Amino acid sequence: MDASSLSGPIDPGLQWSEKSAVAIIGGQGEMGRLFTKFFTSYGFPVQVADLDTPLTPECAMRESDIVVFAVPLHKTVAIIGELVSLARPGQLLMDLTSLKSAPVKEMLRSPASVVGLHPMFGGRVATFAGQTLAACPARISPQRWQWLRGLFVARGIRVKECTPEEHDRMMSIIQVLFHLMTMLAGRTLRKLGIDIRETLEYTSPIYRIEMNLAGRIFAQSPELYAAITQMNPNTGQILAQLKESLEVYEDFYKSEDLQGIMDDFSQSADHLGDFCSDAYRESSALLDFSVELANNIRNGSNPRSDK
Amino acid sequence: MDASSLSGPIDPGLQWSEKSAVAIIGGQGEMGRLFTKFFTSYGFPVQVADLDTPLTPECAMRESDIVVFAVPLHKTVAIIGELVSLARPGQLLMDLTSLKSAPVKEMLRSPASVVGLHPMFGGRVATFAGQTLAACPARISPQRWQWLRGLFVARGIRVKECTPEEHDRMMSIIQVLFHLMTMLAGRTLRKLGIDIRETLEYTSPIYRIEMNLAGRIFAQSPELYAAITQMNPNTGQILAQLKESLEVYEDFYKSEDLQGIMDDFSQSADHLGDFCSDAYRESSALLDFSVELANNIRNGSNPRSDK
Repeated sequence: MDASSLSGPIDPGLQWSEKSAVAIIGGQGEMGRLFTKFFTSYGFPVQVADLDTPLTPECAMRESDIVVFAVPLHKTVAIIGELVSLARPGQLLMDLTSLKSAPVKEMLRSPASVVGLHPMFGGRVATFAGQTLAACPARISPQRWQWLRGLFVARGIRVKECTPEEHDRMMSIIQVLFHLMTMLAGRTLRKLGIDIRETLEYTSPIYRIEMNLAGRIFAQSPELYAAITQMNPNTGQILAQLKESLEVYEDFYKSEDLQGIMDDFSQSADHLGDFCSDAYRESSALLDFSVELANNIRNGSNPRSDK
Repeated sequence: MDASSLSGPIDPGLQWSEKSAVAIIGGQGEMGRLFTKFFTSYGFPVQVADLDTPLTPECAMRESDIVVFAVPLHKTVAIIGELVSLARPGQLLMDLTSLKSAPVKEMLRSPASVVGLHPMFGGRVATFAGQTLAACPARISPQRWQWLRGLFVARGIRVKECTPEEHDRMMSIIQVLFHLMTMLAGRTLRKLGIDIRETLEYTSPIYRIEMNLAGRIFAQSPELYAAITQMNPNTGQILAQLKESLEVYEDFYKSEDLQGIMDDFSQSADHLGDFCSDAYRESSALLDFSVELANNIRNGSNPRSDK
């Protein structure tokens, strides 16, 4: 399906077309701008409401057929909550935030159609092609969802359908567990007064990658990372399990129980299964690339991307 | 300095030359084989002692000028301890294990020259060029150390000199903190019954890399990872700091203190300083490469490395 197939006479079962008025609330943020570009590329008339636009969010709600909330995660539920009473049946509400249960629930308080979205990419990507978009078609007819889904697919986006609960459970690993560990590592390095540049002189490629990914997180917004790690409905469970795990490893350490650690390690390896050998192969290619990249940087050439 | 400059008349101040007899104890392991190749490439006569070789470690000690311990980390101190009384002045003892304080201390019980080594690379690397070797020249004349160092440098190895204590402190971050977190993540995924392949359907490139690095660890030896995380002299400190950090984040969570997390996050970012922006740039190149790699794998082409 490409853009042209979306034109032509509107299917009577379809409520929206590329002529539908789109409002992006929070449209001046990175993600808002990206999705403004997305809808504009199909010819939708797009209006933007943000903190300093003439258009207010209230007017945007009243004047549009399709409303996209592209606001900071920690304010999403409050902002939807203030506007949801203005929504009409026949409207489509969507949000672009990193959690889905609470925002979708809040949008469902309206009589409108509701689709929660979570772009698994940043607002600065050069292309949609090959990117993944998690989507929760919470209240929308199958036909209309196929139309909307087609808009994404036609741009090369992989659409991963899920319920808000499934989504947030997966994000409790992808976002909470891993980003929380990065934040704990950052705090630990700081509290122990470790000079990160000094550790990098002992570079193993795997550590260099790990530190680059950690540094990347800390180069970004504290608000975003605080919100995605703390507001997930499963955060309490992840914290509790992480603490239990840490206590078990503390016991192994205190009782000098190397065998206990080896057994735990092997059980985790078994749980991960043949993913481990795939990961070994894929990461080897990555490590080779990383060594090259680090040598280029040492020799003063630029890495091939500067995004 | 290249290999040829190491030939010629032996400097009277030098005790060893490429004619010195080398013994690799544990020479049938991956790292032992790699260093057998290393010394053989210079023309040193190299003998290997391992569990099923005719040459015993005791004979190897008696018959060689240069002894390299290439044995599993958790057995290193015990093996050196059994043999150290056979060492002579004029001999050179080295080890290749991932920690330095205890093995070096054990070798120093001899009257021999002592250099602790930690190759920051695996036994399966294709080339020494560009690899890093941490080295603790614990008891050796400057002239002899320059000769030995030259052997490594001539093969393109970056030699990072440090004391055993400095080394183990750096490894408490590189190995203990990061590998321990991987082991905790593995245990957490297992205990929560998370299907890793399912999480990967929501792929953000950064998460894919993180999981590939984690999977890579679990594809390897439990013995090695148990030993490097538990036998570091600073492991207790790392565990304690990690626990304190986790408790602080648990409090943030329970009191819904997003501001507390943002402040902690910002302090860690400040501590890491301009490393964060460098890391953002370097990791962007890495993420681009990883997305390409993942797409190639999805499309059935092989990653460019199969090591």
